[in-house]
Amino acid sequence: MFQWLDSVYSDGSKYYVSNPFPKKGETISIRLRMLSNPDIKHVLLRTKEFGIEQLYTMNLFEKKNGLTYFTYDVTVWETKLHYQFYLITKNCVYYYTQYRITDYIPDESRDFTILVDYQKPDWVKKSVFYQIFPERFCNGKQEISVKDGEYTYQGYETVRVKEWNTPAVTWEEGHGVDFYGGDLYGIQSKLDYLQELGVTAIYLNPIFVSPSVHKYDCIDYFHVDPHFGKEEAFAELSKELHKRNMKLLLDISVNHTSSASKWFNRDNEFYEANVGAYQNKNAKEREFYFFDDENHYDTWAGVQTMPKLNYTSEELRNRIYRDYHSVLKKWIHAPYSIDGWRFDVADCMARNDTADVYHEVWRELRYELKKEKSDLLILAEDWSDCSKMFQGDEWDSAMNYFGCARPIREFLGETDLFHIRNEILKSVPVKMNARQLKNRILDYYSQMPFCVCNQLFNLLDSHDVARLHNNKQIHPMEYQGAVMMLFTLPGAPNLYYGDEILLAGRITDNEGYRFPMNWNLKLDRETRSNYLLYQKLAMLKQNSEALSDGGFQVVFDEEYVFAFARFTETEVIFVVCSTNTTEQEVTLPLNYFGIKNITIKEDFFGNHISSDTEKEKLRFVVPAHQSYLFQINIE
Amino acid sequence: MFQWLDSVYSDGSKYYVSNPFPKKGETISIRLRMLSNPDIKHVLLRTKEFGIEQLYTMNLFEKKNGLTYFTYDVTVWETKLHYQFYLITKNCVYYYTQYRITDYIPDESRDFTILVDYQKPDWVKKSVFYQIFPERFCNGKQEISVKDGEYTYQGYETVRVKEWNTPAVTWEEGHGVDFYGGDLYGIQSKLDYLQELGVTAIYLNPIFVSPSVHKYDCIDYFHVDPHFGKEEAFAELSKELHKRNMKLLLDISVNHTSSASKWFNRDNEFYEANVGAYQNKNAKEREFYFFDDENHYDTWAGVQTMPKLNYTSEELRNRIYRDYHSVLKKWIHAPYSIDGWRFDVADCMARNDTADVYHEVWRELRYELKKEKSDLLILAEDWSDCSKMFQGDEWDSAMNYFGCARPIREFLGETDLFHIRNEILKSVPVKMNARQLKNRILDYYSQMPFCVCNQLFNLLDSHDVARLHNNKQIHPMEYQGAVMMLFTLPGAPNLYYGDEILLAGRITDNEGYRFPMNWNLKLDRETRSNYLLYQKLAMLKQNSEALSDGGFQVVFDEEYVFAFARFTETEVIFVVCSTNTTEQEVTLPLNYFGIKNITIKEDFFGNHISSDTEKEKLRFVVPAHQSYLFQINIE
Repeated sequence: MFQWLDSVYSDGSKYYVSNPFPKKGETISIRLRMLSNPDIKHVLLRTKEFGIEQLYTMNLFEKKNGLTYFTYDVTVWETKLHYQFYLITKNCVYYYTQYRITDYIPDESRDFTILVDYQKPDWVKKSVFYQIFPERFCNGKQEISVKDGEYTYQGYETVRVKEWNTPAVTWEEGHGVDFYGGDLYGIQSKLDYLQELGVTAIYLNPIFVSPSVHKYDCIDYFHVDPHFGKEEAFAELSKELHKRNMKLLLDISVNHTSSASKWFNRDNEFYEANVGAYQNKNAKEREFYFFDDENHYDTWAGVQTMPKLNYTSEELRNRIYRDYHSVLKKWIHAPYSIDGWRFDVADCMARNDTADVYHEVWRELRYELKKEKSDLLILAEDWSDCSKMFQGDEWDSAMNYFGCARPIREFLGETDLFHIRNEILKSVPVKMNARQLKNRILDYYSQMPFCVCNQLFNLLDSHDVARLHNNKQIHPMEYQGAVMMLFTLPGAPNLYYGDEILLAGRITDNEGYRFPMNWNLKLDRETRSNYLLYQKLAMLKQNSEALSDGGFQVVFDEEYVFAFARFTETEVIFVVCSTNTTEQEVTLPLNYFGIKNITIKEDFFGNHISSDTEKEKLRFVVPAHQSYLFQINIE
Repeated sequence: MFQWLDSVYSDGSKYYVSNPFPKKGETISIRLRMLSNPDIKHVLLRTKEFGIEQLYTMNLFEKKNGLTYFTYDVTVWETKLHYQFYLITKNCVYYYTQYRITDYIPDESRDFTILVDYQKPDWVKKSVFYQIFPERFCNGKQEISVKDGEYTYQGYETVRVKEWNTPAVTWEEGHGVDFYGGDLYGIQSKLDYLQELGVTAIYLNPIFVSPSVHKYDCIDYFHVDPHFGKEEAFAELSKELHKRNMKLLLDISVNHTSSASKWFNRDNEFYEANVGAYQNKNAKEREFYFFDDENHYDTWAGVQTMPKLNYTSEELRNRIYRDYHSVLKKWIHAPYSIDGWRFDVADCMARNDTADVYHEVWRELRYELKKEKSDLLILAEDWSDCSKMFQGDEWDSAMNYFGCARPIREFLGETDLFHIRNEILKSVPVKMNARQLKNRILDYYSQMPFCVCNQLFNLLDSHDVARLHNNKQIHPMEYQGAVMMLFTLPGAPNLYYGDEILLAGRITDNEGYRFPMNWNLKLDRETRSNYLLYQKLAMLKQNSEALSDGGFQVVFDEEYVFAFARFTETEVIFVVCSTNTTEQEVTLPLNYFGIKNITIKEDFFGNHISSDTEKEKLRFVVPAHQSYLFQINIE
């Protein structure tokens, strides 16, 4: 193939679509660019309108910095506009979809796609999220903390951990009732810290009433846990956040409740015997669950303390998301005014072998919530390929395990986060190369509308995943590269609390990922440098159009160096990550981005680069394990 | 990669799924095979159950003929079961989806897929269809033929063509009212001919009342055109076909009617002025169409004589497919008892810029019709990638332009059937190679459940497409290869009437594809050989399990030779097609199919092959333009 073919580019951003979020009936300009070259004779835009193929000859728009731009205006009438480009030379036709260029007619599975009348959470793409596990972040009010022996849950008495800076014990030791006393007041007291770090949005793990530390087993969705400060503290936190122009994302599992929930109440732990579905067959909540004749019930993943909710119940739907005072609407309304919901185990909600109303419920839920706040973020937990859910009528985004945490961690040498659960897969050595990383990311991203890519919820760690830096197998320099990718891949980065200071933890069990935040840490050279890495990247993410709205192109993927560009017409950010154990030579195509000959002497973090440029390709050597990020402005 | 990796195979057929059409709750065995080899340590089956990934270690099932079979039992609970295979060696994991093998975790877009509770038209996969354009096939009853000046339609008087064997004139000359007098009696008189040829099912272009030759502009869906013999002749034809164990497929456009339809009646050509929606704003059929305030109406593709139907009308849905006496149900019931509907312009039905109820209507329509006859074939006209419609709840099959007619014709050197409509694309020279052909076919097929591939409606020609053999650019020997592919690719072949005798025609206009069938042709060497090619292939298709249910693997795609295998555990059919202008050496892997060393001396048609075998690969030279088909039985 020709070099100019590799330079061909379009995407769903405002640089290539005059309005990336059109309304039905609107006319938009679609653009494409490539290296100016004599081979290209015509570019056609291929769309379908109500099932019928349409071919339009694109017009020459402009020539700038060695690049030629083509354009064509189309009016959108359907809920999605999907299109391909035909690149025509004297002798050949090439076909360009979001996936790749072929020399044969491609199928339509990875067409460029514009969502029409899409209710977008537009703020997400510029956000830097910070995930807080509230019980372990900061204790703001000692008097509301859970006390030793305050109550018994699932047979275990609560324990108050005496010293904040004590490593969390395993579940077998702590039984999920070992409380440090983190609360919402504590979080509020740390907002300056977060803003200083560059955070613009916080994501709180569940805060509704629950007897456990993690609170995914909720007993009352309508109230904030008293040990976190009740609704009062939450309203205040929300007010303070919004005053600072920060966003607030709450976590909830409406897949299941606790067996101790007011709706279920299996063991009378917190409610009287006549309350709840388990003991009272006439309770109106009985239909909220899946009971058989022997009072057995369906659960989440076989966990008996987490009975699964039954969304064939109209009344349940009313209470969860339809009514004005429903669970999911209540917290969207003032004074709580949250900006998004993160749905725990969203991938298995509203479906089991008795009833599968998965898509129906997600569509209805979205419709109901977007009526209240059209830019609400609907964020799902799903660890695998969930691209089908991003078609404009279900989810806005997902915890990006599949396209970010899983491939990046594997690129650094960890066994894949799913594979680690399987004895056979666990035993296979891992050495992922740059081509494999590229394919994992691009195969996935090319299945979804580009606008969704820019609001994916990127992460390396979470409350469910060992902190990457705690894995001694991970090279500290490569960890820096992973953090750079976290902030610069399309999507919004989510920092798991404490990662910025390399918070201690175990990698062997869930409790090991939930150590209390260390507020007394004396930063040494390593932790300071790590903090500054996060801070510099957070500021860059906030301020760079290339990172929030820009294009994305992988520009190098040989051996163990992976490099990509994020770019607008005036700015290019190159990210180069090596997991090679020896140095490796890299060349990057500057001309694809309209950059003339230039050399780079140091990167964004002050790392020295010895580069030269030949034929509009930047050439330099990347030392073992090294990563670079550098920004080039285009006149 | 290793050789054994190329041999890895599974599909959705009964050879790899114990029941390819399971009911919900059923347990099925999934199988996979590969060349026996010491590298493979484990094979895992990866499914998802209600959103949750499941990994199962497959069991060794058997070793036979150098192949190792793995198996695992799963119970199906969802409407679709989708799965991947993980192939594990000491150092690597390979991932096998319906698309390909990767060395990185793939997305789920091309997983193997089993449809659960699927109402299958099981007879299709073994069928040989014969498409008849009734007006041009055979005149069985002179007295019912349209007469000169019998009526006027759209300003033109009917003309009776005097001599049957006259080439059809262009539309500009004949105006669509130049009648030869073909009718249903004529068709019935030729059933012996069709059975002799090997045909098992006939597909009739529209037969309902319409003033035009082609009858896609219907004026009364509830009656058979009197010039074709009314309901009486149709009931008799159906009875006779079913007595012969043949199937009957009818064609209909319920996307639009004629403007002269009883429901519309724009010009009082056949109905009185107070009948129909156009003139009478109070007509109950008014809501069946899209009128604006000025009595303008929406049409099919801008053709004013074909007003588009509006499926937001409940009453229209009742009349078309819901009521017991609805259009689509009437002809399913006795005595007509049709076995399938072919839906004209199905891709644009029930959607336009006013109302898009496309998926809703297809799902409801399917549900309604399958209630009447669960093995009814729901066949759609769609020329492009329509794989999304084959998920078990909309279409069963489509006219396979995208995966058969279009790529095969391009492989033979024709401009793609879509591209020919575009001035720019038309001017680009065509020389498709075997790799491109393979990719066009496999990219498409890998998007759909395997069971659908085996019921695709394969074709080369139709009433809408020039007869391939009439194109003088096409090499006659390569045409034979195209016919072999037509019969042997997964799916059911549809022979367009007369192709078996190389019926004359023009390639420049639609009427040129609709010449009257030539019943007086003296078969010469070329036409006889062509007839025998069709006949032998039709018999093979009827009798070979490899062709109706077997696997499909492309085994050679270098330069201009394309070769694939259709196979069961006891039989392999190799098809080898060359469009090379010089001879080319080919090697085929026999061992992938459990065949030991063997040589082939001649093919199914008696063509000599000089082959040898080395390391279980069959090697031979294919002369320019030559195709081979040969069958090997496995002990």
